[in-house]
Amino acid sequence: MPKGQPLVVPDDGLTTRQRRNRPLLMVHTGPGKGKSTAAFGLGMRAWNQGWRIGVFQFVKSAKWRVGEQSVLETLDEVHRTTGQGGPVEWHKMGSGWSWSRKQGSEDDHAAAAAEGWAEISRRLAREEHDLYILDEFTYPMKWGWVDVDEVVATLRDRPGRQHVVITGRDADPRLIEAADLVTEMTKIKHPMDVGQKGQRGIEW
Amino acid sequence: MPKGQPLVVPDDGLTTRQRRNRPLLMVHTGPGKGKSTAAFGLGMRAWNQGWRIGVFQFVKSAKWRVGEQSVLETLDEVHRTTGQGGPVEWHKMGSGWSWSRKQGSEDDHAAAAAEGWAEISRRLAREEHDLYILDEFTYPMKWGWVDVDEVVATLRDRPGRQHVVITGRDADPRLIEAADLVTEMTKIKHPMDVGQKGQRGIEW
Repeated sequence: MPKGQPLVVPDDGLTTRQRRNRPLLMVHTGPGKGKSTAAFGLGMRAWNQGWRIGVFQFVKSAKWRVGEQSVLETLDEVHRTTGQGGPVEWHKMGSGWSWSRKQGSEDDHAAAAAEGWAEISRRLAREEHDLYILDEFTYPMKWGWVDVDEVVATLRDRPGRQHVVITGRDADPRLIEAADLVTEMTKIKHPMDVGQKGQRGIEW
Repeated sequence: MPKGQPLVVPDDGLTTRQRRNRPLLMVHTGPGKGKSTAAFGLGMRAWNQGWRIGVFQFVKSAKWRVGEQSVLETLDEVHRTTGQGGPVEWHKMGSGWSWSRKQGSEDDHAAAAAEGWAEISRRLAREEHDLYILDEFTYPMKWGWVDVDEVVATLRDRPGRQHVVITGRDADPRLIEAADLVTEMTKIKHPMDVGQKGQRGIEW
């Protein structure tokens, strides 16, 4: 329900409006489905508000292309041609980030992930996007490819009104502690359990 | 991960391809966020595949308009003008369904919900959509506004290759039993707990 009443009114010296407009750090974690899908769904809402969206996919394969990418790129084109909605940038780690000249660094995922995070830090400092979708970013955090304390401090101290959503299993407790909103997706039942493989249009 | 291996290969006489392309009944339930957002995110994937999408929102207020509706209506327009993606229909219970002449039946939510389900049944029989999003349909089931056994039987016996996703808390055990994929969204942390209200672009 969208217009719920808060359970507690905090003693933080902020007005309801200030508090309402506070930028959010969101985490979608857990072993179930829907973590990324819900994050890209948030992207639809953000686009509709005219927000500047930056998607950063920390996935290994550059070949992988989810339906959401096509859709958000279509929406970016709608924005550029009609002014409706907001601009969308979609960056994928794959075999080197699009802004990077270092191609063929495909094998060094740790370096690529660190480079991705460094770019995101710079964009946060410049307040370049209104919504950052850091897809599967829990894994570089888990595997020590980025410094979790530094990531959490940078996110916590980010300027202005920038929303961030991070997806992936096994979110670090320090990230959960710093987050405003954490949802865990739990698998109750999945077709792969009964021998069904993923299918086009549903899984990607 | 999109291309996982199934844990079990079932003895159901189907080929992997037949099994892969089996239509899915999906349920997003639980008290956490992201149930509807992930369902509308699935809509993005489906649109990208050129599927015919039918959204049926079992919400009380017709005034309520989520960002996803604007986006999916924009995508429907892109489809109509360029042929890209698939067609999208968006129906809201509100003060009477769009296909119904009975306006002003706003007060009789039970009748409106039953009417919505009857229309969905007819569309399932005609194989009118490739993906049905029945948003917040667990509530009419819970409140006895529709016959749960009949709903489950109709969904289970639907012809052709029609995918269905149902969202809402407290999914009936019979629905969960019939579903192929069930995800529970659990709230770990929510800004409303610390006195923050919902905000535009995030909650709608």
